[in-house]
Amino acid sequence: MGKEQLSPALFIGVQGEDIISFGSGQPDLPPPDAVYKILPDYRDFKYGLIQGTCELRQALSRQYPSSTADSFVVTNGASEALDLVLRAIARRGDQQKNKVLIARPYYYSYPHIVRFAGMEPVYTDAIDGRIDFNDFATKVPECKAVIINSPSNPTGRVEAIDTLKKIEAITSELGVYVLSDEVYKDLIYVRENYLIAGPHVVTINSFSKTFAMCGFRVGYLWSLDQELVQETIAIKTHTSMNTNILGQEMALAATSVPVSFIEEQLEVWRQRRDLIYQGLLDLGLDLWKPEGAFYVMPKVDNPEDFVWDLYERYKTITYLGEWFGAPDRVRLSYALDIDKIEEGLQRIGQYLKSR
Amino acid sequence: MGKEQLSPALFIGVQGEDIISFGSGQPDLPPPDAVYKILPDYRDFKYGLIQGTCELRQALSRQYPSSTADSFVVTNGASEALDLVLRAIARRGDQQKNKVLIARPYYYSYPHIVRFAGMEPVYTDAIDGRIDFNDFATKVPECKAVIINSPSNPTGRVEAIDTLKKIEAITSELGVYVLSDEVYKDLIYVRENYLIAGPHVVTINSFSKTFAMCGFRVGYLWSLDQELVQETIAIKTHTSMNTNILGQEMALAATSVPVSFIEEQLEVWRQRRDLIYQGLLDLGLDLWKPEGAFYVMPKVDNPEDFVWDLYERYKTITYLGEWFGAPDRVRLSYALDIDKIEEGLQRIGQYLKSR
Repeated sequence: MGKEQLSPALFIGVQGEDIISFGSGQPDLPPPDAVYKILPDYRDFKYGLIQGTCELRQALSRQYPSSTADSFVVTNGASEALDLVLRAIARRGDQQKNKVLIARPYYYSYPHIVRFAGMEPVYTDAIDGRIDFNDFATKVPECKAVIINSPSNPTGRVEAIDTLKKIEAITSELGVYVLSDEVYKDLIYVRENYLIAGPHVVTINSFSKTFAMCGFRVGYLWSLDQELVQETIAIKTHTSMNTNILGQEMALAATSVPVSFIEEQLEVWRQRRDLIYQGLLDLGLDLWKPEGAFYVMPKVDNPEDFVWDLYERYKTITYLGEWFGAPDRVRLSYALDIDKIEEGLQRIGQYLKSR
Repeated sequence: MGKEQLSPALFIGVQGEDIISFGSGQPDLPPPDAVYKILPDYRDFKYGLIQGTCELRQALSRQYPSSTADSFVVTNGASEALDLVLRAIARRGDQQKNKVLIARPYYYSYPHIVRFAGMEPVYTDAIDGRIDFNDFATKVPECKAVIINSPSNPTGRVEAIDTLKKIEAITSELGVYVLSDEVYKDLIYVRENYLIAGPHVVTINSFSKTFAMCGFRVGYLWSLDQELVQETIAIKTHTSMNTNILGQEMALAATSVPVSFIEEQLEVWRQRRDLIYQGLLDLGLDLWKPEGAFYVMPKVDNPEDFVWDLYERYKTITYLGEWFGAPDRVRLSYALDIDKIEEGLQRIGQYLKSR
């Protein structure tokens, strides 16, 4: 067993009092009480609408402009939303045009999910964790779709509104689909979220990050392209049918939670962000200032040694940047207590000193 | 609006005191109490293992021979299990060999789900609702996989054990995958279920029919081909992640329900089966005796008129056989009260008299 075995799977289920995990990308604080309150009296059991319950889609439609319940499809997390949309797009229009543009570093599922849909990922390398619009613009004409992820997992960066507007304009002109993965939209430290809009835009979101409901797998897609919405429903009809009806009911309960819940969570995340960002800077690491989500991506020498040795010798889990298309970096999630972040920073400091 | 608009979607959500629906294929009786008992105290929220919770897979492993928890993947219903396996198989071995053999009449999702995986459905026409092994044997050598569904939706027939054994032998010899969809395995009126076995077999099952948990979408696949199991997990990792953790916990509770629950349900289904079978015979219709599941598939003249007129003039929902590859028949689900079945039979009788 050595560093050549490093993979995200290696760390799954690794637990223990003395382990500090900067690995997994999920909130550690629980969902709002409201989502559990409906459980004791719940008695439904029949199939639901493939598109999602009317009540949940109506609640969502109040959060998106020019929307009705028809604009949404409730899915098994944002992952299934992306999978369905990519499969629908792959079957649309020119079958030979099958490239999907992805900003690198990327969320590690993107290249896989694009290939599973029979399409081909192509990359635009981000500058300082943000899209380089000039490079984006040269590559987008040959693509059928692009995936945008702001705030970004793994970079923690938020795109400039100006870049997002330029992406809106060029994709609209070219008729290229924009899949905007906004699962971290409620975890932005620098500004309000900017909702990319347009006839070819599909917005993907989920209850996993905002409401800490990862395990319940309730996500959704939103689009004003009604034909595309119907095509994703047609695929879902045969590949998974309705999303778990109880998960949807819990998500509906989450939509009524006061906005103060989100604000308080954001304050917790901001404190953690400040602590880990300053801590890693103090250790002399080169990293981008995180603007959203809950990840930092410092540059390190010999990332494989870093991840392996920290795990083996300091019981501290970090992820290889290579898994996200950034081979000279590592990714740390700061979804853990302030105390643990401090302890983890100390261990990283000791390790760096020992190198 | 006329009979040319007939589609399963037309009937979704159609309800009312005076409607008799032989349409939808789902149990009307509720799940066992045990599945709701865990709800009041449930507090988990984090991601679970992609493969499914250890506890649920361990419980399942006690129901299948030569199994461990590693042999199972818990999925969003049987639909996702089929989708994942087909996508995995499509990527395996000879990419040019992409045909999947399906017995006709078929469950209406099969041709779609095969095509969505980039493969091509080919058909073997059943005789009296059961596989014609001679035809099967001529077609299977050109195929990469076959889908078996005994008991069958829509025919209600159960394959002869002799046929299943011959299918085992020929597919094993040829190295063709067998996807055995056994979601109705606990609803057989004529014998015990026969579990197809072999190194290329993938058994697909679900909690939807046995425990009336359709809306919770908990299914699974079982295979002794560990490489194939791992490949389905790899796909699910990116396309939907873990199956809803609470749904899995409810399914686990169902695994401890005494077998008398299933026996009592079966008795209810048997009474309904006897009633509708005799009733339709008495109306002079030509149909196969149902041996499992909860469907009958009588032959009728002008099936489109039959389905449309019964709906429009007698508020009685039936499905076109054409949706299942049987254009000279209609499908009736008998998942409803004895009283309603009787009322529905009367309406069908009145309609047939009026023709």
